Amino acid sequence: MVSIGVIGYGYWGPNLVRNFSQAKGAHVTAVCDQRPERRALVEKVYPSVKTFSDIDEMLHNPDVEAVAIATPVSSHFPLAMRAIQAGKHVFVEKPFAATVAEGEQLVAEAERRKLTLMVDHTFIYTSAVRKIKELLSNGSLGDLYYYDSVRVNLGLFQSDVSVLWDLAVHDLSIMDFLIGRSPTMVAATGMSHVPGRPENMAYLTCFFTNNLIAHFHVNWLAPVKIRQTLIGGSEKMIVYDDIEMSEKIKVYDSGITVNQDEDSVYQRHVGYRTGDMWAPRLDNIEALKIEAEHFVECVETGQQPLSSGHAGLRVVRILEAASRSMANHGQPVEL
Amino acid sequence: MVSIGVIGYGYWGPNLVRNFSQAKGAHVTAVCDQRPERRALVEKVYPSVKTFSDIDEMLHNPDVEAVAIATPVSSHFPLAMRAIQAGKHVFVEKPFAATVAEGEQLVAEAERRKLTLMVDHTFIYTSAVRKIKELLSNGSLGDLYYYDSVRVNLGLFQSDVSVLWDLAVHDLSIMDFLIGRSPTMVAATGMSHVPGRPENMAYLTCFFTNNLIAHFHVNWLAPVKIRQTLIGGSEKMIVYDDIEMSEKIKVYDSGITVNQDEDSVYQRHVGYRTGDMWAPRLDNIEALKIEAEHFVECVETGQQPLSSGHAGLRVVRILEAASRSMANHGQPVEL
Amino acid sequence: MVSIGVIGYGYWGPNLVRNFSQAKGAHVTAVCDQRPERRALVEKVYPSVKTFSDIDEMLHNPDVEAVAIATPVSSHFPLAMRAIQAGKHVFVEKPFAATVAEGEQLVAEAERRKLTLMVDHTFIYTSAVRKIKELLSNGSLGDLYYYDSVRVNLGLFQSDVSVLWDLAVHDLSIMDFLIGRSPTMVAATGMSHVPGRPENMAYLTCFFTNNLIAHFHVNWLAPVKIRQTLIGGSEKMIVYDDIEMSEKIKVYDSGITVNQDEDSVYQRHVGYRTGDMWAPRLDNIEALKIEAEHFVECVETGQQPLSSGHAGLRVVRILEAASRSMANHGQPVEL
Amino acid sequence: MVSIGVIGYGYWGPNLVRNFSQAKGAHVTAVCDQRPERRALVEKVYPSVKTFSDIDEMLHNPDVEAVAIATPVSSHFPLAMRAIQAGKHVFVEKPFAATVAEGEQLVAEAERRKLTLMVDHTFIYTSAVRKIKELLSNGSLGDLYYYDSVRVNLGLFQSDVSVLWDLAVHDLSIMDFLIGRSPTMVAATGMSHVPGRPENMAYLTCFFTNNLIAHFHVNWLAPVKIRQTLIGGSEKMIVYDDIEMSEKIKVYDSGITVNQDEDSVYQRHVGYRTGDMWAPRLDNIEALKIEAEHFVECVETGQQPLSSGHAGLRVVRILEAASRSMANHGQPVEL
Repeated sequence: MVSIGVIGYGYWGPNLVRNFSQAKGAHVTAVCDQRPERRALVEKVYPSVKTFSDIDEMLHNPDVEAVAIATPVSSHFPLAMRAIQAGKHVFVEKPFAATVAEGEQLVAEAERRKLTLMVDHTFIYTSAVRKIKELLSNGSLGDLYYYDSVRVNLGLFQSDVSVLWDLAVHDLSIMDFLIGRSPTMVAATGMSHVPGRPENMAYLTCFFTNNLIAHFHVNWLAPVKIRQTLIGGSEKMIVYDDIEMSEKIKVYDSGITVNQDEDSVYQRHVGYRTGDMWAPRLDNIEALKIEAEHFVECVETGQQPLSSGHAGLRVVRILEAASRSMANHGQPVEL
Repeated sequence: MVSIGVIGYGYWGPNLVRNFSQAKGAHVTAVCDQRPERRALVEKVYPSVKTFSDIDEMLHNPDVEAVAIATPVSSHFPLAMRAIQAGKHVFVEKPFAATVAEGEQLVAEAERRKLTLMVDHTFIYTSAVRKIKELLSNGSLGDLYYYDSVRVNLGLFQSDVSVLWDLAVHDLSIMDFLIGRSPTMVAATGMSHVPGRPENMAYLTCFFTNNLIAHFHVNWLAPVKIRQTLIGGSEKMIVYDDIEMSEKIKVYDSGITVNQDEDSVYQRHVGYRTGDMWAPRLDNIEALKIEAEHFVECVETGQQPLSSGHAGLRVVRILEAASRSMANHGQPVEL
Repeated sequence: MVSIGVIGYGYWGPNLVRNFSQAKGAHVTAVCDQRPERRALVEKVYPSVKTFSDIDEMLHNPDVEAVAIATPVSSHFPLAMRAIQAGKHVFVEKPFAATVAEGEQLVAEAERRKLTLMVDHTFIYTSAVRKIKELLSNGSLGDLYYYDSVRVNLGLFQSDVSVLWDLAVHDLSIMDFLIGRSPTMVAATGMSHVPGRPENMAYLTCFFTNNLIAHFHVNWLAPVKIRQTLIGGSEKMIVYDDIEMSEKIKVYDSGITVNQDEDSVYQRHVGYRTGDMWAPRLDNIEALKIEAEHFVECVETGQQPLSSGHAGLRVVRILEAASRSMANHGQPVEL
Repeated sequence: MVSIGVIGYGYWGPNLVRNFSQAKGAHVTAVCDQRPERRALVEKVYPSVKTFSDIDEMLHNPDVEAVAIATPVSSHFPLAMRAIQAGKHVFVEKPFAATVAEGEQLVAEAERRKLTLMVDHTFIYTSAVRKIKELLSNGSLGDLYYYDSVRVNLGLFQSDVSVLWDLAVHDLSIMDFLIGRSPTMVAATGMSHVPGRPENMAYLTCFFTNNLIAHFHVNWLAPVKIRQTLIGGSEKMIVYDDIEMSEKIKVYDSGITVNQDEDSVYQRHVGYRTGDMWAPRLDNIEALKIEAEHFVECVETGQQPLSSGHAGLRVVRILEAASRSMANHGQPVEL
């Protein structure tokens, strides 16, 4: 039984408390929040959970083996570092860290102390993304050509970070999981429409080896909600629409056919193949439950989480480079 | 009655012959094509139309006042220039020209000779785009924030030009018409998945003054057909979906509200407003008919066409810069 | 403060306990269920609520002013009657009663004792149905021509009642609220595909005076979920799609135009008018909250609920006649 | 080469002339229409086709082996009968005849003379319906439970026949082809909203043996266009949406599972099974071309057409019974 202390009981913290309370092999023993009214809330709903206003006090509590951090990204590094140094396993919200340097230190420190470090890349534990991973892993799509994602809506403005760090982080974590390799270069553009605020819409291109290209459109200011990802391969293509209730994943048996036999490359015939479409049934297991129990298992066995600190760091590396590129109107940045 | 000679009777030429034949005030008197079998086809369907294999011969025919050019883009400049110099009004397929330099010469030559020069930007004559123009012109949208367009499908590969020149040209001509000003900088990325071929998918960002940003996603290699444009303003937002049969345009009474009164920009409250949606009824007048008759009217009155050589040139200027940027992985190019 | 006792803590009972607990002016003081394990559940989650295994015991409790009944339809009559005769106000699940005769006795008994009797016709308290009511009430639709509803899905088979009593009851309660008058005749057809079970799919037509017709398609055995209602009027028509997230109601400015001036009815010209479409913004107030507070208000003021026993009875009258018609392959039944 | 004379050059006749002109093995030699301006139109577009104002004159022409009749339904019987008696093969628009009695005489007369008699049930030659037929024929769906069709739109009012004869005829011809057996009883309801006109909306139920039920909703007066058919089987279910551009047919691996082992029918457990969805690729062969060439083949070989006079008659039999039922508010009519 892994005993967990949750740091931050704001917007997301209550979800962590609930999820870890219900996860097999875990129980929540402590919650830390500086605000008395938030602690009061915890005490009312979970009378058996101890509350703390001081992080160090909670970390010295022997009844806390692991901490889950749900605070603004700027505080991830100091809080996670203190927890690791206190010998605690760490589960931290995404984005993993505010900079690559911070992320690297956390990864190194956790490895040195052989502690589990896991980032809350929730989407990779959903039935839809797990099904796509299965299709990519068994080679169904052939050579991977592109990954194109749109995540837009009339949503909540963040005041501290740009829309890349708020929305693209979801898609980058999914892409990192699905593709399994990192881009070599990124180029991003974006715009802020509220004076003094970070960009509220952004476009990001990631270049990979072997002609693979990925693109992300994120926008806090769209009239409609779109959550659509196209994944193109030489054999098959996928449309993943997270808003669809019943057919989130459609697999198209479509693609181009290039006649390789002709002597001149300019005369190669490019044809199209269209075939059946197939929407696989997805299981109903809740992502947050899978994720919480995966964390528990990693803590107990020492195995590397799917969304490890390394994964979190790869995503932050892209975000950091993308922010630099975006500040320079798309100027490419090598990774 | 404007007598028209059509140059090129391949894929698009037959449409031009039909449209100008049916347009009020115009009749087609000549068609030029080097291929005998294409000329034979004209003679069979339109026995009264004279056919030519030689362009100069057709241009010397006094029974041709204007020419319509439907040939590959690389030949637009020589053919249009020869026609203008022979004193003919010119209607030319998009993209207007293969380079900015070519386009500039055509515009200058047509102006010197006071001849009508019009580019076939068909979409700006559709009922949907005309309705959006009306909404933008009367200020319904407030300040313009962004223009975001996706045009993808499993389509026909072009062997000579990239997908930008083939597909984005449509959206750039629409944007040019709707926004009425030109970007100051562009950044584009893209990829080719067939060895030796130009890019089959591309992403293009256009930066304008006043925080306006536009973005285009074009792709010959998508599993599904998407033709969707989002236009965001401070007061209203538009979704223009050209695949929808009955509700191509939806106007959302949504937007952000910024409380300008607070003293610190960092503390300005950003709120959201959502309201009704409205899908205006569109008229059924066919775009090609409107366009052909507009050309006739411009020839007769000397007025500047909506899709003049200048408009065509503005689009080519963006395409040329975008191609340069795309070759450099998104490196921004100033206009 | 109205103190409420809930009878039946199975599938729906927990929702009633939660809703009445949160409703302004109400508190739940008692729950009655014969099953010890269900009572144990109540005691765990709501330690302050008294539990009973015997209904009469609960009804004699002075701390219960009103009861909410969430048991199978066959028990509605005996339970509601006992509660009314014990001087309690009654809130009862739909369908109101198993027969018209039962419903009539309940209505009469509640009126004699001046007690509030309300049926849980939840849908009429939703923002979508309230908005449609507003449009119908202000005459926007012109003369009402038809009401057509489809409610199908791959759902839960009921073993005791046909799909009419399980699904059509929703749509009949909505129609009763919206149209405000009752049909004069019904005709229904249906089929059972599981031996020994009641009909799992059914079609019901309701005839009204003034050429108004209503139709309902309900099906437990469809591959897709559909919740669509068309309401046709002489001036406007409504499409109400309850599955749509953002645009549940669309109002079409469409209709037929009949030239009444011509002398022969056979030569009257029938034309069509199509106009704009408009999707009004709906408020976010939760139906169950509105409904629970409406019950409290009715108990306190003595006003008639929108979904009174009379409304419940009108719906049962249609269901009873429809069942008779369905047993006779569509033979019409007058009301 | 089968030489064809077309009777009636109004709304549909030009399509027949074009289709039979292009069909392999057929040519159009004559067109008959009483209106001089319609004959003039034929002469202009098809100078080689002979025109007639008198039907008997055309029928005596030895250069006409078969006739195609595209006139109002009330004239199908006299025209087709005269053509058959003149020894011509007959292709006739749907509905086949105005009454069952008329249809029976036509079928008998054509059989006596060993002439081909085919009804224009176009939909059964489409790639979508042929694919569904294939799925039904190979038993993919298991036991057939229901057929549910909706065909509504804001369309053209017919002045002479009700919406059943105008719209339901399409769906009944599809159902007849797909199911391959006839209903034993029908019940229909409907309404007219224009004084003096036949019903503009109707609902029709067909009962078959083995618990198969079919239902049709047809409406000239809907705000939106719907063309959706659900076909439910014990193993799989089909959604056929004729408005969808790319995925007209979706096959759902869903259904109910009945545990047959339990001793009491009331306690049989009814469960649900949901699985993958599959949208088969459809070929692009045009239905009208297939149909025209099928007619030619039947004329040449003497084989029975898929949409024979018998098929036409079966559909008319349902329409006639349905009209009777509709006049009596759903009173069932045995077939």
